[in-house]
Amino acid sequence: MILTLKPNAAKKDVDLICKKIKELGFTPHLSKGKEVVVIGVIGQNAILKRDIFEAMDVVAFITPISKPYKLVSREFKKENTIIEVDGLKIGGTDVIIAAGPCSVETKELLLEIAKKIKISGAKMIRGGAFKPRTSPYAFQGLGEKGLKYLAEVKKMTELPVITEAMNVNQVSLVARYADIVQIGARNMQNFDLLKEAGKTKKPVLLKRGLSATIEEFLMSAEYIMAQGNYNVILCERGIRTFETATRFTLDLNAVPVIKKLSHLPVFVDPSHGVGVREYIPAMCKASVAAGADGLLIEVHPCPEKAFSDGPQSLLPPQFDKMMNELKAVAEAVGRKL
Amino acid sequence: MILTLKPNAAKKDVDLICKKIKELGFTPHLSKGKEVVVIGVIGQNAILKRDIFEAMDVVAFITPISKPYKLVSREFKKENTIIEVDGLKIGGTDVIIAAGPCSVETKELLLEIAKKIKISGAKMIRGGAFKPRTSPYAFQGLGEKGLKYLAEVKKMTELPVITEAMNVNQVSLVARYADIVQIGARNMQNFDLLKEAGKTKKPVLLKRGLSATIEEFLMSAEYIMAQGNYNVILCERGIRTFETATRFTLDLNAVPVIKKLSHLPVFVDPSHGVGVREYIPAMCKASVAAGADGLLIEVHPCPEKAFSDGPQSLLPPQFDKMMNELKAVAEAVGRKL
Amino acid sequence: MILTLKPNAAKKDVDLICKKIKELGFTPHLSKGKEVVVIGVIGQNAILKRDIFEAMDVVAFITPISKPYKLVSREFKKENTIIEVDGLKIGGTDVIIAAGPCSVETKELLLEIAKKIKISGAKMIRGGAFKPRTSPYAFQGLGEKGLKYLAEVKKMTELPVITEAMNVNQVSLVARYADIVQIGARNMQNFDLLKEAGKTKKPVLLKRGLSATIEEFLMSAEYIMAQGNYNVILCERGIRTFETATRFTLDLNAVPVIKKLSHLPVFVDPSHGVGVREYIPAMCKASVAAGADGLLIEVHPCPEKAFSDGPQSLLPPQFDKMMNELKAVAEAVGRKL
Amino acid sequence: MILTLKPNAAKKDVDLICKKIKELGFTPHLSKGKEVVVIGVIGQNAILKRDIFEAMDVVAFITPISKPYKLVSREFKKENTIIEVDGLKIGGTDVIIAAGPCSVETKELLLEIAKKIKISGAKMIRGGAFKPRTSPYAFQGLGEKGLKYLAEVKKMTELPVITEAMNVNQVSLVARYADIVQIGARNMQNFDLLKEAGKTKKPVLLKRGLSATIEEFLMSAEYIMAQGNYNVILCERGIRTFETATRFTLDLNAVPVIKKLSHLPVFVDPSHGVGVREYIPAMCKASVAAGADGLLIEVHPCPEKAFSDGPQSLLPPQFDKMMNELKAVAEAVGRKL
Repeated sequence: MILTLKPNAAKKDVDLICKKIKELGFTPHLSKGKEVVVIGVIGQNAILKRDIFEAMDVVAFITPISKPYKLVSREFKKENTIIEVDGLKIGGTDVIIAAGPCSVETKELLLEIAKKIKISGAKMIRGGAFKPRTSPYAFQGLGEKGLKYLAEVKKMTELPVITEAMNVNQVSLVARYADIVQIGARNMQNFDLLKEAGKTKKPVLLKRGLSATIEEFLMSAEYIMAQGNYNVILCERGIRTFETATRFTLDLNAVPVIKKLSHLPVFVDPSHGVGVREYIPAMCKASVAAGADGLLIEVHPCPEKAFSDGPQSLLPPQFDKMMNELKAVAEAVGRKL
Repeated sequence: MILTLKPNAAKKDVDLICKKIKELGFTPHLSKGKEVVVIGVIGQNAILKRDIFEAMDVVAFITPISKPYKLVSREFKKENTIIEVDGLKIGGTDVIIAAGPCSVETKELLLEIAKKIKISGAKMIRGGAFKPRTSPYAFQGLGEKGLKYLAEVKKMTELPVITEAMNVNQVSLVARYADIVQIGARNMQNFDLLKEAGKTKKPVLLKRGLSATIEEFLMSAEYIMAQGNYNVILCERGIRTFETATRFTLDLNAVPVIKKLSHLPVFVDPSHGVGVREYIPAMCKASVAAGADGLLIEVHPCPEKAFSDGPQSLLPPQFDKMMNELKAVAEAVGRKL
Repeated sequence: MILTLKPNAAKKDVDLICKKIKELGFTPHLSKGKEVVVIGVIGQNAILKRDIFEAMDVVAFITPISKPYKLVSREFKKENTIIEVDGLKIGGTDVIIAAGPCSVETKELLLEIAKKIKISGAKMIRGGAFKPRTSPYAFQGLGEKGLKYLAEVKKMTELPVITEAMNVNQVSLVARYADIVQIGARNMQNFDLLKEAGKTKKPVLLKRGLSATIEEFLMSAEYIMAQGNYNVILCERGIRTFETATRFTLDLNAVPVIKKLSHLPVFVDPSHGVGVREYIPAMCKASVAAGADGLLIEVHPCPEKAFSDGPQSLLPPQFDKMMNELKAVAEAVGRKL
Repeated sequence: MILTLKPNAAKKDVDLICKKIKELGFTPHLSKGKEVVVIGVIGQNAILKRDIFEAMDVVAFITPISKPYKLVSREFKKENTIIEVDGLKIGGTDVIIAAGPCSVETKELLLEIAKKIKISGAKMIRGGAFKPRTSPYAFQGLGEKGLKYLAEVKKMTELPVITEAMNVNQVSLVARYADIVQIGARNMQNFDLLKEAGKTKKPVLLKRGLSATIEEFLMSAEYIMAQGNYNVILCERGIRTFETATRFTLDLNAVPVIKKLSHLPVFVDPSHGVGVREYIPAMCKASVAAGADGLLIEVHPCPEKAFSDGPQSLLPPQFDKMMNELKAVAEAVGRKL
């Protein structure tokens, strides 16, 4: 960590800071330029004491050298983390496609979708039993009944299940039925929920918050790992920008950046990130080309009742066609579906 | 709600949509332009069925006419909501200043700060007992002990207390000690927490999420009000933008916008929004000039131990000076502190 | 165009608006809901009169139905525009790779790079003679001498040249030497420059502004086409967001969106968009998978003088390796390099 | 400037960098931590060589210590710059209000507005003769005729004139008629235009770009000053964010930030920044409370022809009422109108 002092720093202040650095068990390292004094704070985990120096009026700004996260980082673990779920190796050579409806509606519909996506090559089923909704008047999900449907459909299709837990009291319930517990984007910095997810034995898929920097995203994963749960999947799902042609801006740059900084598997959710059906296939292909280890894709058949799927759900034939194209892209980058 | 269809909409599709509109109890109203068909969906609360139409492939986009919130809106209640807390009238003529440390550290320090801010004119004390922190390795707050200190200091100074609840299980605990329960920015769309806050009898101060639109902000307040708690204070605290000279971008535009759309009181938190001590006084004055009903301001004395306050805390003398200037601004816009 | 009036709209105002609509040669179409009045403005190009209605106090908001651009739109021209440059077909099956240094330095270096990228499969050379620089004290480019080097290197390698014009007086000069005239991101709404570019006979590559919506981007292309120059290439190069791990956020979503809305070819510039060497290859592959018709890539050999290239330039061997991978991705999506 | 090297930096690389630093005339200053090597580059204006080090693969990141601008900075000139225009002192105790129509339409209308705003207390007239418009089909301004009207109205009312120049060839023309030459937000990084503005003798009002950081904004002012024109006014006019309730997000935080970093006067343009008539007065008051030295405000009378003003223009009586309120706010912060 490097402290750059304000131009007018008095010798007294410099001495005070150096004393504080030593008190904390670190070594100060002074550089005096023509205009400013710069102090290196040398020692392991110095960055964790950042707050103390940030509060000092004479410190102009702080440059972190080491990352503020440990367990999540590539430095901590060089090789890619591979998470095994029912024989699937998440983070390995295979790109894992998880598909399914936005929310679980009926068991029949869920089963129908599960069968179709399996034929097309999906390896997991996703669907919400607890639904975070912007409006208090919108459908909030089937709750535990939805979890049961997911578990039953898994028995019939052998597709492992990803589904969301929304509060601290739901984690163990969801973990009982699901193979992977999802933490949603709006809860990425719900720190108590992260801690609770860290205590479960099930893998956790953590979605990036709408306005979270990649560093904050990794810090949230660190919360889960710090509780002892090392099976975390990071999922890019679109960030907030000024652009309105898509619902969010799917930030594929995050894929190579996270692969560089962390050993954890990276998924992408183009359905929520883009929010417009016809742009989803292109962004699925781009995600895999960018290096994603897996995708979450919304699929809904839109049968006679016609209108219950979201504007971002692919119809099963669209999904099937897209999966064929995706296979070619995966192979082009040395992976397979 | 107005549905604009895609240019190639077939008559069959148009008929299907009109049929659906009638099924839902609304009246369709067709306009055929040279190129596109536009269908008005007429009837109360039609907007709540937005999802259904959004999912239809033939619908290009939807224009909401009525707002998606009800209880929060100026249409629902014309006159300003005034929330009474120990005789203070929040949302009335007085601009309410709540000040205090970022987190509660010791009872002595809290009392010292409380006495000082009271002399300077603050009407409430703020301070965190449960602290949302980006890093799992950072100080997470004193918990219930912190709440007790706050309650004791209140007894001694008669300053009502604002403090944060971070998860569904903390709300009733916090409500027992505090006068106003705060929901933090990172929890603005923690919907289960909002529901829980809606069940308490205490007023709730809801902070705007870092990337929440004003409409989403109001929808989150609607969650609280829909549970029967009508005493909600909305608090602007900075949004995420590309600018790095300030920690966030304090969006003062939100003040007149919310005052227009809603009857609820609006607070501003310049300390967190700006994050740099020397810019706080200017933004406090601007907030009041823009029409804020109250401010949250971090104050910390930075005594012999020197370094435990945040880079955005004002020192008590800075706070005192600023309060004098603020009084003049408040009077200039027909208010008082 | 649909006008939604404010809830309190008086009959007098409604009549006044309808009268105005007729005066302008359009047909008003009224829908009266329980709470609000909505008026459709029916007639060709009604959207071009948007300003008039936007200014009316009684109009709450306006929903455009037709797009504000014409020549640029897919409705105007269904099939993809293919721009021929020295036998290359930009916008056809081939993905066109243009590579080269950020700025032209010496003829020898330019020639060396040109030869190398040609061997690796690049089809065009790019490099700046006029350089837009944030600092007035930074190297501003070689000017016309740089243009001459580009033209000479073209003669020797047969690689057509893309290079930037920065002001209205440079367009014809640049057009004399270059095969494609580039308009930079910071000039995307330099409307006089766009008009000037519209008067040249050479194709124009227009970069998206750092904070330009896709609609504004297309409007800027419309400026060029409205002057009679129909050979416009649109280039995504990263937008401004809060994320700091990459220099900008390369917005690949823009690729399928623009391909849908417009018939013009779409390029991507990952070098400037991402700004970090090691993430460029992943984003090149993602760009092609998303449907890009071409890429601009910075390549610089970093020879004995060692330090004159930018942090986003690929070294020739990195470029060569990446081109091999890119070929596979292009083929996976039915294209070739 | 501090260079933080990548963790794996070889001794050879470190030596190479130190050699380069010395070659450039600076002194290297090494700090070796447990994990990384940090090199201070000590010497005046080292930051201007930033590019060279940024390109080195072994450099992880660079921390600038001194600012990349000189003439603009508070360090260069401690006291506020005061710009005199016809006896007005811009940047002094008075807050200067410049008002007028978005674009110049007729001389009569301009005169009518000028008289009204003068009575209300405005000290300058603003209005566009050359208009940057998103659409090529929209009214592009009266051109030189508009400039003549402005000059004539000035003669009749003694209100000095601010108006925009859009390209390098217009600067001297605009400077002939106007008292202050405006550079618009979309041209903030039109570097050739900035240079041209730096050559005129007239003061320049430079608007902040829609996605420009404050540092980039100051760098653009540096372009003008580097040509010898030291009379630059900086104008905040709203930045691009995700929020859609206002047209842009007026960033008032920029006011105290710029006042801290620079000696130049700071104006605010709430009309363009907010874009919604009813929110303008609140934001004008907030701007002055935040420390603005002046405001640009759109005023248009909206007479019998009714519909030619913009949605953000105040009507003269609204402007007059607001000016009264503004006077009180100005006095509250020790200024006057």
